[in-house]
Amino acid sequence: MAATDSRPGMARIAEAGEGIGLDELALATRNHGMPLEALRYDVTPPGLHYVLTHYDIPLVDPGSWRLEIGGAVERPLSLALDELMRRPAVTARVLLECAGNGRARLEPRPVSQPWLLEAVGTAEWTGTPLAPLLLEEAGLSPGAVDIVFTGADHGVERGVEQDYARGLPLAEALRPETMLVWGMNGSPLPPQHGAPLRLVVPGWYGMAQVKWLTRVDVSTEPFTGFQNATAYRLKVDSDEDGEPVTRIRPRSLLAPPGWPDFMTRERFVRAGPVPISGRAWSGRAPVTRVEVSTDGGETWSEAGLAPADPRNPFAWRRWTYDWTAQPGRLELLTRATDEAGSQPLEAEWNRQGMANNLVQRVPVTVLE
Amino acid sequence: MAATDSRPGMARIAEAGEGIGLDELALATRNHGMPLEALRYDVTPPGLHYVLTHYDIPLVDPGSWRLEIGGAVERPLSLALDELMRRPAVTARVLLECAGNGRARLEPRPVSQPWLLEAVGTAEWTGTPLAPLLLEEAGLSPGAVDIVFTGADHGVERGVEQDYARGLPLAEALRPETMLVWGMNGSPLPPQHGAPLRLVVPGWYGMAQVKWLTRVDVSTEPFTGFQNATAYRLKVDSDEDGEPVTRIRPRSLLAPPGWPDFMTRERFVRAGPVPISGRAWSGRAPVTRVEVSTDGGETWSEAGLAPADPRNPFAWRRWTYDWTAQPGRLELLTRATDEAGSQPLEAEWNRQGMANNLVQRVPVTVLE
Repeated sequence: MAATDSRPGMARIAEAGEGIGLDELALATRNHGMPLEALRYDVTPPGLHYVLTHYDIPLVDPGSWRLEIGGAVERPLSLALDELMRRPAVTARVLLECAGNGRARLEPRPVSQPWLLEAVGTAEWTGTPLAPLLLEEAGLSPGAVDIVFTGADHGVERGVEQDYARGLPLAEALRPETMLVWGMNGSPLPPQHGAPLRLVVPGWYGMAQVKWLTRVDVSTEPFTGFQNATAYRLKVDSDEDGEPVTRIRPRSLLAPPGWPDFMTRERFVRAGPVPISGRAWSGRAPVTRVEVSTDGGETWSEAGLAPADPRNPFAWRRWTYDWTAQPGRLELLTRATDEAGSQPLEAEWNRQGMANNLVQRVPVTVLE
Repeated sequence: MAATDSRPGMARIAEAGEGIGLDELALATRNHGMPLEALRYDVTPPGLHYVLTHYDIPLVDPGSWRLEIGGAVERPLSLALDELMRRPAVTARVLLECAGNGRARLEPRPVSQPWLLEAVGTAEWTGTPLAPLLLEEAGLSPGAVDIVFTGADHGVERGVEQDYARGLPLAEALRPETMLVWGMNGSPLPPQHGAPLRLVVPGWYGMAQVKWLTRVDVSTEPFTGFQNATAYRLKVDSDEDGEPVTRIRPRSLLAPPGWPDFMTRERFVRAGPVPISGRAWSGRAPVTRVEVSTDGGETWSEAGLAPADPRNPFAWRRWTYDWTAQPGRLELLTRATDEAGSQPLEAEWNRQGMANNLVQRVPVTVLE
C-alpha cells in the first residue's frame, strides 16, 4: 500500500500520527454531522440532518430552473418545477448516510471530509417517483444501462473540473422508491439539501442522492464519470479498479447518555438505572438484531428493537436497552445485524475510507 | 506565555505544527459554520446559520417548561411558554457571531472549537423585550447589578460541572433590543438554537445569547460563574484576570467567487469581470467603510456598502465590488472599519482565541 501517492486522481493518505489538517478542517466546518443526541428524534429536525456538499451550494433560481430529461429516450422532456409538482406526490421517511461516515478514525486516515460517526439523518422526503417519468413520459430507447444524474454544483476534484454527476444502474433508477424530491420535513427543500430538486435513492449511500438536479440522461453505456469511476470505490491499492460503493451497510448508533465534557466529549452518568437508546439501519437487507455491550465488547446483550414500519422500510429503527450502571470507567458499544451480516469489530480499511461500519465505542465514567 | 498549561481551568495551547486533534474535530463535526457562499442571503436559511453548543442539545418539553424569573426582584415570576407569548411580540434581524470565530488559524492555536471563519449567521428573531418583564412585572429590588441567564444544557468544562449560565450587566439586559426569543425566521426555534426560549442580546458575541433558558435571576453582585470569570476573557497570560468578551468587533467577509477545489477549497475564476460581494458588521459601532484588496493587501479599494437599515441596526450589511480579474494567482482580502477602528492585518493573539477579527484572505487562481 502506498502511504503517499501524488498521482492525479488519488486521494492522499495521512502519515502515521498526522493530525487533522486545515484542508480537512475546512471541510468539517462547512459540512456538518448530526449531533448524536438527535438520534432521539424519529425525524431529524431541520438543520440537524447531516450535510455534505462537494463544492459550493449553488444559487438556483427556482423560477427559471428546468429539469432536462434526455439521452437515449424517445421524447426528451424539459420540465419546470411547477410542472413536475403536478405529478403524483409521495412522502417517504428515509435514512441517508454519507459513504465516508467514520473515515476520520481509520488508520492510516484517508484525507477527505473527516467524519467521525455523525454523517446521518432521517427526513421525510416529498416528491414524485422517477420511473413513470422515464417509462411513460420520456420512453426509454433500447439498450438503456445507466441513468446519469447531473447537479448544478460545480468544482474541481483531484484535477478534474466537473458538475457533480453520478450514474445509477437502470434497475435502481426504476425502483418504485426512487424519487425526484422537492420537499423535506413538510417544507420546500433548503438550499443545502438540493433546492429546488434532488434525487433520493432509498438504501444507497449519500453520493447517489444527487442534489440541485439539472439533467437526467439515459445512457446505453455504463457511466464512467469521476464520481463513479474514480471516487466512491472500495479499493485498498491505488491501481485497483475496486468495487463501486452502493448500498448502506448495517449500523447502530447510540445517543451518548448522561452529560459531556465540553472538550473531550467524554460522558458522565450517575450510578443506577440508565436508559440507553439509539437507532439502527441497513440499506441492503432488513435489520434483524441490535446488541449492546457495557463492558467494552466482552459481552453483548440484545436490545429491544422497534418493529419495522412497513410504510417506511428505509427509515432507521429505534432501539432501547435498560442499563444499570456501576461506578467506574467503561465503554458502551452497539452493533446491528441484518440478514446479510453484522457490523465489524475491527475496521475494514480502504483507501477512500468508504462504507466503513465499524461498531461505535462510547467511553463513559459512571459516578457514585 | 506558557505553551502548555495543565492547571484546571486552563485551556490547552497546541504545540507548534500540531495538527487538529480528534477532540477538536469532535466539536467541529457537531457544531457547524455557515458555508461562506451563504453570505448571499440577507437572512440565513434554516440549517445554514452557525451553531455552537457547549454540551448536548437538551430535550425540553415545551408543554411542561416554565421560565423562572427570580433573585433580587419584588415579585418572582414563573411563566409558561404560552403565557410569555402573550407579551408584545417583536421581530428583529440580528447577526450573531461566535467569540471563537477565526480561532483555528491562530498560532499557537488555543485548543477549543476550531472555527476558521464561518461561525456567523443572520436570522429574524421573534420574541418579547426583556426590560418590561424585569421592570414592570417582576420589579427590580435595590442594588441590582447583573442579570444571570441559565440554560437547560448541562456538562463539564475544565473540571467544573455546570448548567450553562452567563451574567449580563443590568444596563445591557435593559436595552430595548434585548429579547426573550421563541421564533427564528418565522418558525418556532429549532432545538439547536435554544427551543423553546433563548436570549438574544444584539451586538454581543454568541456566548451571551443563552439558549434553552430556564431561569433569569437578578443579582446584586457581579456574576462569577465559569462562563464569565474563567471562559470568555481576553488574556494572554494564564494568571491574568483579563477583560471580559462583550461586543462583536468589526468584520467583513466575502463570498469566495468562482468554484472550489473539493479538498483544498482553493478558488478558480475565469479572467474578466468578476463581481465580488460580502457582508460586514460590527456590534460596537456603526460600520463606516468596507475595503477590498485584490493583490494580497498591497493596495485597497473601497467597496459599495449598502446603507444601514434603521429598523435592523444589528443586521449585517451587504457590500459589492466590481473586480476585473487578470490571469494568475492572488489573494483577495476584505476589511471593515467602524467608528471605533479597523480590522487588524496581523492577528492579536489571546489564549482562548476570542474576539479575533483578523482580515479574511481568499487565495484565487484566475484562469485564462
